[in-house]
Amino acid sequence: MDRRRFFRILGAGGLLGLLKAKAQGLPWTEETFAPTKTLGAPLAEYGERSPFEAGVVRYISPNLRTRHSGASFAPLEKLEGVITPNGLHFERHHAGAPQVDPRHYRLVIHGMVERPLVLTLEDLKRFPSVTRTYFIECAGNGQNGYRNPPDPELTATRSRGLASNASWTGVPLALLLKEAGVKPGARWLIPEGMDAAMYTRSLPLEKAMEDVLVAYAQNGEALRPEQGYPVRLVVPGWEGSIQVKWLRRILVTDLPAMAKDETSEYTDVTADGRVLAFTWVMEPQSIITYPSGGQRVQPGFHEIRGLAWSGFGRIAKVEVSFDEGRTWRKAVLEPPVEPYAFVRFKLPWYWDGKEVVLWSRAWDEKGNTQPTREEFFRRWSRNNRYHYNAIQAWRILPDGRVVNGDRPLGQGAFGPVGPVGGCGGEVLDV
Amino acid sequence: MDRRRFFRILGAGGLLGLLKAKAQGLPWTEETFAPTKTLGAPLAEYGERSPFEAGVVRYISPNLRTRHSGASFAPLEKLEGVITPNGLHFERHHAGAPQVDPRHYRLVIHGMVERPLVLTLEDLKRFPSVTRTYFIECAGNGQNGYRNPPDPELTATRSRGLASNASWTGVPLALLLKEAGVKPGARWLIPEGMDAAMYTRSLPLEKAMEDVLVAYAQNGEALRPEQGYPVRLVVPGWEGSIQVKWLRRILVTDLPAMAKDETSEYTDVTADGRVLAFTWVMEPQSIITYPSGGQRVQPGFHEIRGLAWSGFGRIAKVEVSFDEGRTWRKAVLEPPVEPYAFVRFKLPWYWDGKEVVLWSRAWDEKGNTQPTREEFFRRWSRNNRYHYNAIQAWRILPDGRVVNGDRPLGQGAFGPVGPVGGCGGEVLDV
Repeated sequence: MDRRRFFRILGAGGLLGLLKAKAQGLPWTEETFAPTKTLGAPLAEYGERSPFEAGVVRYISPNLRTRHSGASFAPLEKLEGVITPNGLHFERHHAGAPQVDPRHYRLVIHGMVERPLVLTLEDLKRFPSVTRTYFIECAGNGQNGYRNPPDPELTATRSRGLASNASWTGVPLALLLKEAGVKPGARWLIPEGMDAAMYTRSLPLEKAMEDVLVAYAQNGEALRPEQGYPVRLVVPGWEGSIQVKWLRRILVTDLPAMAKDETSEYTDVTADGRVLAFTWVMEPQSIITYPSGGQRVQPGFHEIRGLAWSGFGRIAKVEVSFDEGRTWRKAVLEPPVEPYAFVRFKLPWYWDGKEVVLWSRAWDEKGNTQPTREEFFRRWSRNNRYHYNAIQAWRILPDGRVVNGDRPLGQGAFGPVGPVGGCGGEVLDV
Repeated sequence: MDRRRFFRILGAGGLLGLLKAKAQGLPWTEETFAPTKTLGAPLAEYGERSPFEAGVVRYISPNLRTRHSGASFAPLEKLEGVITPNGLHFERHHAGAPQVDPRHYRLVIHGMVERPLVLTLEDLKRFPSVTRTYFIECAGNGQNGYRNPPDPELTATRSRGLASNASWTGVPLALLLKEAGVKPGARWLIPEGMDAAMYTRSLPLEKAMEDVLVAYAQNGEALRPEQGYPVRLVVPGWEGSIQVKWLRRILVTDLPAMAKDETSEYTDVTADGRVLAFTWVMEPQSIITYPSGGQRVQPGFHEIRGLAWSGFGRIAKVEVSFDEGRTWRKAVLEPPVEPYAFVRFKLPWYWDGKEVVLWSRAWDEKGNTQPTREEFFRRWSRNNRYHYNAIQAWRILPDGRVVNGDRPLGQGAFGPVGPVGGCGGEVLDV
């Protein structure tokens, strides 16, 4: 029997029919067999990606004035599951990622403590350790949503790619503080990085005693330089900017530092013109990664896939709407569903080829959910820069192209608007 | 106040006293501050490790005659948590890792099916997907244990490093088989790789319908070339050698292939001289990664850390003995404890500086555990090569050096012994 004919897909039933895949008459070719005719690559001490995957990279905005202070975005729509590979974890720094020599590394805990500590990296690794999977999200994630009219070319990467998820290993900060002996009256910690910005923030002692990690490993191996090598804070559920990297000291004190990056930056402007500081907890987020902006789909079966997370704990459910919020369908959550971690959601769907808008919204175990774009801007100023978590809409056009489905905001209804620029250099006009 | 004096560790109480860390009088140095004085590295599209971590690599035996057929070992004692980073996942191949062009990739499912399938990579990704964390372990893991007398220089890497753990994403094979329509009478699948060995095995249909994945992603990104890029089988709990990589076709049939790698290789020799084939399930394993062979420890507090897993399901408990099995202490298991996946176990411990031998043994939810070395060789021939899962002992010498704590086997008590060579090229004399 003719091989081409033999391997032709015979059946029209089942999922392949729904897929409408162009799978008919696609037998093996000479190129398909090429790898079987050559000796492959030898064993290697450290593995690299296939050269065919070289295009899967973090996004760096061409609008950045410098690549030494800014952000690169995780390519969310090109990733599977919930672990962000270390090479693709989003990065954000204020004076470049310093190269720290672990032999000279010291972590100091001082201030209102009975016994100031000076710890080497080796000391730190001897303390009891914990490993937990947590998302880290830049306070500026979603910033592109402040643009008006919305950017039609938006991708999932540029919409929510300033978030990533990893398995972090380290020492509970509470244990180190217990070791140092916190004095009565202490309320705040002032962690400081050893980057050229000597990046500084204020962290409530209460959160530190609860679940903050002094982390030295990420997905099994040492932290990557851009993630704070050799040591960073991991503050579950809170904005990334307080999770100080290249951590060199923690001052225990009774008052916050009111540092630049918690007063002039990383504050939130409400619709009625007030400015809120110390808005640390990341609200629920979700993003459909397939189908999403920049992709092209064919009529037939699709598994809608996306990521959801919340700074308030576990994701309770994710809903998908095909009619801009009038009705919702519940997506399947892939286990294990862990607190303060990415969850993968999925929903089987048949696209009939007609124009349609997809929405997703996450609900967390505390009952929080995502607002629509209109609801978001009733609360927050269009001059705000951070904590954008409105529903992201994707519009599928009749030709299968997927574009930003967010609708423009009404003019003048939301207060005055000025130009802003943010972490990733993405927001230029609003 | 003198800075040196100010930051000196004052207290002798608490854990630091137990650590006996040389942390006194270690203030910041000029080198400590160096990173704060230089602009750091710019944003990057794909992140790399710190150059200070260049020594954390897979182990390749210098005894190998070729690096195109053999194994590299994951550096278990240098890893944290349970995720094996993709660059450090152990590798094993029989004719090198082929470079497969995904544009020409086709997966064929044929034989005793109603509708033979030819799927492109794109087709495959449109099917409903699942992501699960599973260990993969070479049947030859632990092979060094067949050496007698035991190798005193053994490390955790060389003891059990032919195992790794990752989050795998793919399509349930059961779904593809349903799509193809398996004909009555079919009992076996013959998966074949597209490496130069055209590596072939026989997989029972029953297991395929249960939980086998046709996987295309590993820890979030595409499979690495040495893990089967673009598509491999993942067969939860079974020996790595049946989890065919660079998967090009699956023949559905009524009889096993009796292929070279399931008859002349990957079979097990019992103590009474029988040879067992199709011994797929990996028995419970555990390995203490800290303290472990080649490390050096100081008296004082230590967190004993290790990894455990079983091909029969979830790990139920891990025990540690300090007296060669007379008494046992239960270690803490780090959640989430998932089936067919690595679990990190931990036990706080104070070393008094006297010579001691550490043992660990894993128990799974089905009640299986690890044998002692003597028990193992009552069942299996010393000419066997595979499925070694006896307890690994580490001996801590009074000077703090950690060496292999396995005791030599009695001569002549276990049948005839010949020289063997295995996957990793590690076993040369027994």
